[in-house]
Amino acid sequence: MRLQGYSIPRTSTGRASLVPPPPWHYVGDFLVVDYWADPDAVRAVLPEGLDPHPDPGRCAAVFADWQSSSEGGDELVDPIRSHYREFFIVINALLDGEEVTNCPFIWVNQDFALARGWIQGFPKKLGSIWMTRTFGLDLPADPGLRPGGRYGATCSGRGRAIADMTLTIDGESEEGPRHNAPPIVNVRHFPRLAAGRHDDPQVHELVRAVSRDRAASKAMTGPATLTLHPAPGEEHDTLAPVEIDRGYRFTFGYTIDDLKTVKEFV
Amino acid sequence: MRLQGYSIPRTSTGRASLVPPPPWHYVGDFLVVDYWADPDAVRAVLPEGLDPHPDPGRCAAVFADWQSSSEGGDELVDPIRSHYREFFIVINALLDGEEVTNCPFIWVNQDFALARGWIQGFPKKLGSIWMTRTFGLDLPADPGLRPGGRYGATCSGRGRAIADMTLTIDGESEEGPRHNAPPIVNVRHFPRLAAGRHDDPQVHELVRAVSRDRAASKAMTGPATLTLHPAPGEEHDTLAPVEIDRGYRFTFGYTIDDLKTVKEFV
Amino acid sequence: MRLQGYSIPRTSTGRASLVPPPPWHYVGDFLVVDYWADPDAVRAVLPEGLDPHPDPGRCAAVFADWQSSSEGGDELVDPIRSHYREFFIVINALLDGEEVTNCPFIWVNQDFALARGWIQGFPKKLGSIWMTRTFGLDLPADPGLRPGGRYGATCSGRGRAIADMTLTIDGESEEGPRHNAPPIVNVRHFPRLAAGRHDDPQVHELVRAVSRDRAASKAMTGPATLTLHPAPGEEHDTLAPVEIDRGYRFTFGYTIDDLKTVKEFV
Amino acid sequence: MRLQGYSIPRTSTGRASLVPPPPWHYVGDFLVVDYWADPDAVRAVLPEGLDPHPDPGRCAAVFADWQSSSEGGDELVDPIRSHYREFFIVINALLDGEEVTNCPFIWVNQDFALARGWIQGFPKKLGSIWMTRTFGLDLPADPGLRPGGRYGATCSGRGRAIADMTLTIDGESEEGPRHNAPPIVNVRHFPRLAAGRHDDPQVHELVRAVSRDRAASKAMTGPATLTLHPAPGEEHDTLAPVEIDRGYRFTFGYTIDDLKTVKEFV
Repeated sequence: MRLQGYSIPRTSTGRASLVPPPPWHYVGDFLVVDYWADPDAVRAVLPEGLDPHPDPGRCAAVFADWQSSSEGGDELVDPIRSHYREFFIVINALLDGEEVTNCPFIWVNQDFALARGWIQGFPKKLGSIWMTRTFGLDLPADPGLRPGGRYGATCSGRGRAIADMTLTIDGESEEGPRHNAPPIVNVRHFPRLAAGRHDDPQVHELVRAVSRDRAASKAMTGPATLTLHPAPGEEHDTLAPVEIDRGYRFTFGYTIDDLKTVKEFV
Repeated sequence: MRLQGYSIPRTSTGRASLVPPPPWHYVGDFLVVDYWADPDAVRAVLPEGLDPHPDPGRCAAVFADWQSSSEGGDELVDPIRSHYREFFIVINALLDGEEVTNCPFIWVNQDFALARGWIQGFPKKLGSIWMTRTFGLDLPADPGLRPGGRYGATCSGRGRAIADMTLTIDGESEEGPRHNAPPIVNVRHFPRLAAGRHDDPQVHELVRAVSRDRAASKAMTGPATLTLHPAPGEEHDTLAPVEIDRGYRFTFGYTIDDLKTVKEFV
Repeated sequence: MRLQGYSIPRTSTGRASLVPPPPWHYVGDFLVVDYWADPDAVRAVLPEGLDPHPDPGRCAAVFADWQSSSEGGDELVDPIRSHYREFFIVINALLDGEEVTNCPFIWVNQDFALARGWIQGFPKKLGSIWMTRTFGLDLPADPGLRPGGRYGATCSGRGRAIADMTLTIDGESEEGPRHNAPPIVNVRHFPRLAAGRHDDPQVHELVRAVSRDRAASKAMTGPATLTLHPAPGEEHDTLAPVEIDRGYRFTFGYTIDDLKTVKEFV
Repeated sequence: MRLQGYSIPRTSTGRASLVPPPPWHYVGDFLVVDYWADPDAVRAVLPEGLDPHPDPGRCAAVFADWQSSSEGGDELVDPIRSHYREFFIVINALLDGEEVTNCPFIWVNQDFALARGWIQGFPKKLGSIWMTRTFGLDLPADPGLRPGGRYGATCSGRGRAIADMTLTIDGESEEGPRHNAPPIVNVRHFPRLAAGRHDDPQVHELVRAVSRDRAASKAMTGPATLTLHPAPGEEHDTLAPVEIDRGYRFTFGYTIDDLKTVKEFV
């Protein structure tokens, strides 16, 4: 091909690509709540190719405050091109009998991360996401990573509340969140606009995330709250919690430069 | 398929789709400048399948302040889901000898319009776009649609200036802009993330825009300025003007529910 | 004084002033709903120096989509410095027996307008405000200024819904909105930070708005809806409608370069 | 007074106040560059009541990524009400012979911090501010607090670049930045709009910042870059660096509930 670039826009050099080419390196802070939604609501968003999990309604809600970069990229010193925050829900499911997760709803606050997510099968919309931080100083404005430390996070989209989460740390967790632990299997989907083919997407396939060079801090845990708010043109609130297990706060990172196609539907 | 929705996210109802299904109805205000860039720079962004235009370097720069909706949609009374603004450049080219335009660079300020653009082959990034308005009152804050009326528009991305345009009306134009008039032919592109296939997109095709039910106001015209600013990770400034013809201000709308594939490359 | 500038920041030239010096010229589109809130709630936000209106609970809710400029300013062709949108509520009250309005809550989407508002006594916070537009073309995406034309507007702050309004035009109004008609009397307030004086503001005075060179379009009217949403750290929803009269859509502009102090409290 | 609230908007409870009452607790990450600007340019923004510093042109540029809260406030678990980022410049000056700093230009990304700054005498405008973070994991996306770690920060306002900074850590600093160390003395300024008094502000006084309960991490240091970009309606670029000393990265926090008036001009 004449033009270069991993994503659009493509040019003779590829430098303007919205998404730089893989590998993509990530590190970020997380707030996660393990919970259960209404099993029928979870089943109603289960994509083609996945089966219901034996523990029906099992979900996790995840806030992440990320910094990412490409290989040798200058994004790290131009943080408007490396920082982003996101909120997403995963449901638990089975893929040919194996436990997996799937992301039906996700919001993110930067365009490069939205596009990168689409390429990975994350159904990203834009949102405004905020998460309490710790700074390592013993001060009233720093909750610290200690019992009693309180964290909160919110997500909104189109000026409407989408989700709120709080965690009050009561100790350290050996394991971290469980509902978020299985490998994630998403759907890559790219529609057609040709007349008569609006229901016949050009890309529609089940894909399995692949990552390497993972590292994590210890996880702090404690009682948590989670609210999923109704909003015009949104359906994530169908997955509102009917039971909440616990919340977790930790730091995590990895590198991504691969994706496995599991099933192609078109 | 089990789930519904024209775009992601897909659910049992399809109501959460970021992009509602076509048809899409549009109306908006436009500022357009017909100009010429360096012919080599235009050739350097000419996509596969198009040939250089015989008038080398011919381009237009376009600011649009849009309101759009789907069929029977409630977006019109929820304007955060119907308003958006965008800035784009078109180059002039030939498709099998026929005059066409192609959009190498475009910025838009809403996620639904970004995604809709990708589906149409517009290589949209997020930006912040502003354009002077007229309100129909004879007041100092209203430039009016009369000789001497001054309009301006700006686009920024990632906190950096991308483009500035001004127009000073000196009369009415019978024809409107010419560099923007030929049918637009874009590239739909959807990359792969599978290891070893990062240079082998899953979708890469030349597509021709189709629209219907077009309407336009009269066009006002006059001398214009256009500046394309360099910015980190951007290449649109390679198409900076070497000669400017004139600028135009008008209102325009149409309906879109089709797209013709011209050439498939994968 | 050594430095110049109507507002901060002040420099040797005054060019960097966030708010350019008066006069300020305005033009904008409006959606207004005349309504009544709970009389006790209106009384609870009545500022020092004003008495309750004899028609208790009388309020208006106003969305405005503005373009403004200073004298000879270049803001009109740099629209990021002239456009802004706002949502506000006015209560009706008496000042020494005369009918007046007062603005207890207002959100705006630009810093220069926020600062200009504080100087005028409008208690502005930042928000995200959207309003349906008409473009003068007979197209599905344009509601038009005709019976059946539907308009909507929303305001959010800090990612939470603040207010929604809709209007369905059923005709033209001779008078326009009545609850918004009396002169507006606000409170200029500038707090102290000196220890022991946090409750002793440096500026606290009742002021009466003055404007000149007013112009308006005809007003369209019809049945309307208004919802004021609760949100953390907000109290505007105490003024939620208990009865709604009608809604109005019109264009209006004026010039401001004066303000009358009615009563000084410090 | 009938209504309550430290800042506007004021109500019967004071809960809607944009700025909660002091004390205000802060913690944040900092990138600071000690540098010198053109001495004449520094003198041109020196406010009434301060004299030039004997080391002419001495300045610091500061990026801060803050988390703040009021006493017992719930802002810490609602981070859209506690997080903000800012960029500012301080010039060095003398107050009655004592070394002080003064802030002539500052941008911040939240309304509550903008208003709080005005109350303290910081001449805040809204901007978009970004700063590289460290997360404590040894991963490619984390620069770490070690030699070779690279940090960057950017500030934009109204869609135009305002400032860029980079730091490459080469070791630890005992002292931290020196140009930013003296106490800060600012100007509280609140204009009048009454006709004939536009040049006669209601509040115009020199104030000295007071803080308590300060804590800081160790400071990392290294060579740095700083660029101040020209932009329409801005003058900060007059303070562009003519010589750069070094950059610093550290975490810092304190509590504020007092301010000393040094000289009153009105």
